[in-house]
Amino acid sequence: MTDPQSKTPFVNGATRLFPILGDPIAQVRSPAGISGEFHALGHNALCVPMHVRPADFDTVVRGLKATVNCDGFILTVPHKLRALPHVDKPSPRASRVGAVNIVRRESDNTWAGDMLDGVGFVGAARKAGLEPKGKRALVFGAGGAGSAIIDALAEAGAAAITIVDLDKAKANDVASRLGKAHGHCRFTVGEASAEGYDLIANASPTGMAPDTSMPAPFGKLDPNIVVADVVTAPEITPLLAHAKACGCRISTGAQMYQAQAAMIAGYLIPEKPRV
Amino acid sequence: MTDPQSKTPFVNGATRLFPILGDPIAQVRSPAGISGEFHALGHNALCVPMHVRPADFDTVVRGLKATVNCDGFILTVPHKLRALPHVDKPSPRASRVGAVNIVRRESDNTWAGDMLDGVGFVGAARKAGLEPKGKRALVFGAGGAGSAIIDALAEAGAAAITIVDLDKAKANDVASRLGKAHGHCRFTVGEASAEGYDLIANASPTGMAPDTSMPAPFGKLDPNIVVADVVTAPEITPLLAHAKACGCRISTGAQMYQAQAAMIAGYLIPEKPRV
Repeated sequence: MTDPQSKTPFVNGATRLFPILGDPIAQVRSPAGISGEFHALGHNALCVPMHVRPADFDTVVRGLKATVNCDGFILTVPHKLRALPHVDKPSPRASRVGAVNIVRRESDNTWAGDMLDGVGFVGAARKAGLEPKGKRALVFGAGGAGSAIIDALAEAGAAAITIVDLDKAKANDVASRLGKAHGHCRFTVGEASAEGYDLIANASPTGMAPDTSMPAPFGKLDPNIVVADVVTAPEITPLLAHAKACGCRISTGAQMYQAQAAMIAGYLIPEKPRV
Repeated sequence: MTDPQSKTPFVNGATRLFPILGDPIAQVRSPAGISGEFHALGHNALCVPMHVRPADFDTVVRGLKATVNCDGFILTVPHKLRALPHVDKPSPRASRVGAVNIVRRESDNTWAGDMLDGVGFVGAARKAGLEPKGKRALVFGAGGAGSAIIDALAEAGAAAITIVDLDKAKANDVASRLGKAHGHCRFTVGEASAEGYDLIANASPTGMAPDTSMPAPFGKLDPNIVVADVVTAPEITPLLAHAKACGCRISTGAQMYQAQAAMIAGYLIPEKPRV
């Protein structure tokens, strides 16, 4: 309870709700962070955690859609792919990735959805000094977050992306699907090696406490490589600790989240009337 | 936003949720009040408003029951009767009244429910100087709150209770059902007159803004009568204003709510292990 971000200004009968659905959920930062963004914008709105098991996901979403003061919701692991069928109007990038991490009620009571994990990641990577245009990236994890990051890197002009996932069929599927959408970028499904890359990104749960492993047994890394991780707990994962020790610039899951928070709040409660 | 009660201390990923379901919902005090009680008890828990239309009630309840960190919920108008079938273990008074206003998840994942409107009302009436034992009460409204108040007055030893409702069949049903449970108390379904009563209670929506009427066109009231109202907005209803002008002691909906808040918080998060 000592995190200053965990203070939220108010809740009353008129508060609008924007739950975040995940399994597990206790580790998520959105309830404090997004609620803080809402408050900074002057909205009486709250992001609340909802711990939802995969088998119950559809039941909970039906309940939220039927709740008049629930104007949208946020999805985290493992619900980002499962949420897409509940969205009437996915954004182009959400359709490419096959997943959404934010959903909102439109004025005509249909539901729009977008996937901001990738743009949040690219924003944080740029702050760490990596401009993706023309660069070569190694991405671990071809799930919802991984697909979004791969799509956003390609959209930002990356020259080549290698995808590594234990589920090789999934990695091949993402490479083939996003390869069609981004003709300029060379997609490979590969082995875990840090040779010849400008960026290494972990978009898998590897390194999330209590796991203390790295996505691959890296040796010494070239200090010119930027290393990024989507895992938020711990903030410095074993991969990031190793990268720091090698002199690499790093980008943390918390920073990727932070780069998204204002975007998420602005998407969920747009200032302009929704079309 | 100036109500100090409307400030809630925190929300984060580990927050437990206790929604209040109603239609309308913006006027309810529980989100601020019950959240404040939770915080005073040291719980990371929040009461959040959910605006739920009657047709969607079952869908929303199914979603809440499937949400792991939703440990209970509060019901307000018009859901108190509709909620009973969702409860596995209603309290004896909830069964008598046929309604619940609080529901909680038990350790075996079944759902217990109770109806505190009546005891809250009696607690507030006692603070206003009315001890119900042996007294005669006139109650307007035979819905969820009215039935609970009638049951609690009889349970506290009231000698006679007259029930007035536009729906006379409903009033007769409540009188007959609660008459069987409380043999010492004389139940009547009657006309609106203030003659011969120690207590007049409004448990109907009459006088809730923008309505400015009284449940009956009372003349001057005997100042020995205690007059109580369940309506919270406005706090001083036309009935209570009239009673004050006649020199009667009054008990407001806010006071009835206040008398319940600590009970509700204690029920929803019991200190002792649940049996």
